[in-house]
Amino acid sequence: QYHEKVIDHYENPRNIGSLDKNDPTVGTGLVGAPACGDVMRLQIKVDDAGNIADVKFKTFGCGSAIASSSYITERVRGMSITDALKIKNTDIAKELCLPPVKLHCSMLAEDAIKSAIKDFRKKR
Amino acid sequence: QYHEKVIDHYENPRNIGSLDKNDPTVGTGLVGAPACGDVMRLQIKVDDAGNIADVKFKTFGCGSAIASSSYITERVRGMSITDALKIKNTDIAKELCLPPVKLHCSMLAEDAIKSAIKDFRKKR
Ligand code: FES
Repeated sequence: QYHEKVIDHYENPRNIGSLDKNDPTVGTGLVGAPACGDVMRLQIKVDDAGNIADVKFKTFGCGSAIASSSYITERVRGMSITDALKIKNTDIAKELCLPPVKLHCSMLAEDAIKSAIKDFRKKR
Repeated sequence: QYHEKVIDHYENPRNIGSLDKNDPTVGTGLVGAPACGDVMRLQIKVDDAGNIADVKFKTFGCGSAIASSSYITERVRGMSITDALKIKNTDIAKELCLPPVKLHCSMLAEDAIKSAIKDFRKKR
């Protein structure tokens, strides 16, 4: 009942891993979903122009959370942090054709990128 | 923050797959968790003595759901269906040291085995 795009990102997740959280050009977002208790960590590395040069994530969340975060990492790479802040979870859910009950999983990805950008800005 | 047993079952899940749902000795359980919308399918193959000879599962759920179902498949193999019906989700949660917020994931595994046994009995 899941769309093939979700299955693809779930089975071949892009950009799983970690960046050095002590690097001053790295922002780390760590967020949780109250609905299910799942957590996600997403990290960005920002270049001098304010663009996202690298991005990694890790989650213990469900298939939809893995797909949402895998998709968002591909989408934000090369993007300015200003533009990345504008990504809505509903865009992710629409792109991946997530069922309504899985909206909170895409919310986890939106929260994670926002939280990573916030952490990066705090370091500056 | 997760126990190594959960991580192990999550990274090397046991008995992922399918059995032929039209086989009269196979019971199929398909259940969902209202808390997060995740689904799990668990199938058992029962021998003439009423023991579970084979068991497979599939889920799009989170790490704790994968670990809970992987653990329960190992536990019920060779068990009588009468004994398998007695497994409580709290046993699974305790064994895997799941945090309270993830109790619903172990509930998914308990529901799935119960539902598979019910389906098998209905076929008889
Ligand atoms: S159900 Fe928890 S993130 Fe999807």
